[in-house]
Amino acid sequence: MPSSELVMDNKNASSTAGKIIRCRAAISRIPGKPLVMEEIEVDPPKAGEVRIKILCTSLCHSDVTFWRSTQPPMAVFPRILGHEAVGVVESVGGGVEEVREGDLVLPVFQGDCGECRDCKSPKSNICSKFVNKDNQSMPRDGTNRFRDLKGEVIHNVLNVSSFTEYTVVDVTHVVKITPDIPLDIACLLSCGVSTGLGAAWKVAEVEEGSTVAIFGLGAVGLSVAEGARIRGATRIIGVDLNPEKFETGKKFGITDFINPATCGDKTVSQVIKEMTDGGADYCFECIGLASVMNDAFNSSREGWGKTVILGVEMHGSPISLNSIEILKGRSVCGTFFGGLKPKSDIATLAQKYLDKELNLDEFITHEVSFHDINKAFDLLLEGKSLRCVIWIDKQN
Amino acid sequence: MPSSELVMDNKNASSTAGKIIRCRAAISRIPGKPLVMEEIEVDPPKAGEVRIKILCTSLCHSDVTFWRSTQPPMAVFPRILGHEAVGVVESVGGGVEEVREGDLVLPVFQGDCGECRDCKSPKSNICSKFVNKDNQSMPRDGTNRFRDLKGEVIHNVLNVSSFTEYTVVDVTHVVKITPDIPLDIACLLSCGVSTGLGAAWKVAEVEEGSTVAIFGLGAVGLSVAEGARIRGATRIIGVDLNPEKFETGKKFGITDFINPATCGDKTVSQVIKEMTDGGADYCFECIGLASVMNDAFNSSREGWGKTVILGVEMHGSPISLNSIEILKGRSVCGTFFGGLKPKSDIATLAQKYLDKELNLDEFITHEVSFHDINKAFDLLLEGKSLRCVIWIDKQN
Repeated sequence: MPSSELVMDNKNASSTAGKIIRCRAAISRIPGKPLVMEEIEVDPPKAGEVRIKILCTSLCHSDVTFWRSTQPPMAVFPRILGHEAVGVVESVGGGVEEVREGDLVLPVFQGDCGECRDCKSPKSNICSKFVNKDNQSMPRDGTNRFRDLKGEVIHNVLNVSSFTEYTVVDVTHVVKITPDIPLDIACLLSCGVSTGLGAAWKVAEVEEGSTVAIFGLGAVGLSVAEGARIRGATRIIGVDLNPEKFETGKKFGITDFINPATCGDKTVSQVIKEMTDGGADYCFECIGLASVMNDAFNSSREGWGKTVILGVEMHGSPISLNSIEILKGRSVCGTFFGGLKPKSDIATLAQKYLDKELNLDEFITHEVSFHDINKAFDLLLEGKSLRCVIWIDKQN
Repeated sequence: MPSSELVMDNKNASSTAGKIIRCRAAISRIPGKPLVMEEIEVDPPKAGEVRIKILCTSLCHSDVTFWRSTQPPMAVFPRILGHEAVGVVESVGGGVEEVREGDLVLPVFQGDCGECRDCKSPKSNICSKFVNKDNQSMPRDGTNRFRDLKGEVIHNVLNVSSFTEYTVVDVTHVVKITPDIPLDIACLLSCGVSTGLGAAWKVAEVEEGSTVAIFGLGAVGLSVAEGARIRGATRIIGVDLNPEKFETGKKFGITDFINPATCGDKTVSQVIKEMTDGGADYCFECIGLASVMNDAFNSSREGWGKTVILGVEMHGSPISLNSIEILKGRSVCGTFFGGLKPKSDIATLAQKYLDKELNLDEFITHEVSFHDINKAFDLLLEGKSLRCVIWIDKQN
């Protein structure tokens, strides 16, 4: 459905502006347990904030990491998860001029204030002005906009919280997007797919003829492959324990597949070194396990091998690197959101999709209605879905 | 003394070409014990090799690391240490056309064959054709050219072995240098000083107005400072346990000094973050301790902080990095020889010295004659010398 229709439907939103909205939200109350659909109250946006009516959202692995967490600082409950989404601006707080009621927008976990030294520099995408260290409340004042009907605060996640009919997001985390783009595709651009594409293009700067190894073939890993394919990488090696991922991966340019469980006496890095005559030019870790980060590093070639860390280490373990091997010209870097600046770079990706340069349709493998949101968790955990789009208003 | 004079003195070298040379060498026989001056036999160069009469050499920390080692693969005895040197070509083996008898040359530990994929790429300085994994013999055939008078093999170090009157070096490790340059300055360019300058210029690409933190103010660390100063870094923070290094460091552009022993309750990285409003743009580890590599990483700013590892970890310990902190746009890379390609880049550095752009004279703090070579070890270990030049023929 072209998103422009839905945007038009929303033109009466101003009747709720300035008021508390009562709506449905899927709340994570107990670590690892199904989300509970409840009525909540959503406060009006404060200065610099935007209240968004969510149209569709999808489930990213990072949500699963927060959902499963049992230790602080990750474990914060009750909480509204979700950070990949697209919606319509319902109302804006004081001083917000960048977007207005009725605009189609993506909420994004990565801030882009446009004012700080980082946002002004082409080298950084880590906004340093409104830094929300705990990722559980609003960046400017550390308070929350959600309450349950008993008055208990419901916490935020990653500056977004999209598993709700309405959310409040700081304007530094809001990106206006063209209504020409289908809603489900727009939704993908707010996190995983952009992260992978950005990592291949902006962080690693994958070159024509290069060899690439990708550890973990979820949506992020496959979008790295899509980015590397478009850049002309000749060999794109996917590493995953799920052999079904290879068939999926071929659609995004994966040329070779390694299942670590069937490497026999060899390590994955030995296999990659043999396949590539010494190691891959670019290695990407898209899982979030320190041991795999080490495998990725060891799979990179001497001379210029670059390892890009995209996965959020799920146990908080440090990365361990052989100190001699790094001296041989290797490098390791990390990135949030693929080094992209949301406010400028998402528009570029959207245009590449509209110009049919980017293959994004294949990322959407499932869709469910909002009240079936827990099915999205099941599908992701079973390795069946790349992205399951959760439609807030549609009854599928 | 202009080196051209000495080169002329050597014009009768051809009388020894093709013959075994008997000469003096300082041999490391027992880990950590004084070198022993002995007569040795030096074989003629084989195909692709060059026999060099060493004019002067100096002591680098890596030699000390090999000298102290008690465990393989670092511990190899008896051995001729030394890898910073300048000399005159005495004779060449078959197929060597790049240099000839009488040429002034630097032997360098870093190979540059000019033929392999790495040497041809602007991205690498890790020659992959003649790879000498054990660093104790000749790269092409794994045999040695030194014997003591009992016929026992004396091992090589780092493809050079310069603590001898004559050595044999593969031509891929030999760089012709202009005779306009003083010998002692030329000697410096064969390792430490080039490593630091290259790390600042070619690996980190330090920019005008940036902040730099350097861990370890030996010759390598101070040459990083010299490189950063020339590039216009506004703040260059030196970290060292020896407070005398600060006075020395000022000559090379160090603006601030941190002694880790006097930071009180704060870590060095906390102090640097406070001084630089969030962390240094570029951090350099020039010691070779995993814990300091970690300090350097933690002192780099979010967004674009880059840590360059130059030190060879003296215990072989891995580097441990906080996996979340690297996601915030930080990177870590390592380098041998500052990412420089010896055959092309050393000439550039020599010219910058002759043009008085580079301050190299201050690196030479001491000089000794060859028979006093153990004094060079004492001076370095006591933190008194940056570089002690060891003159092979001069009687000081």
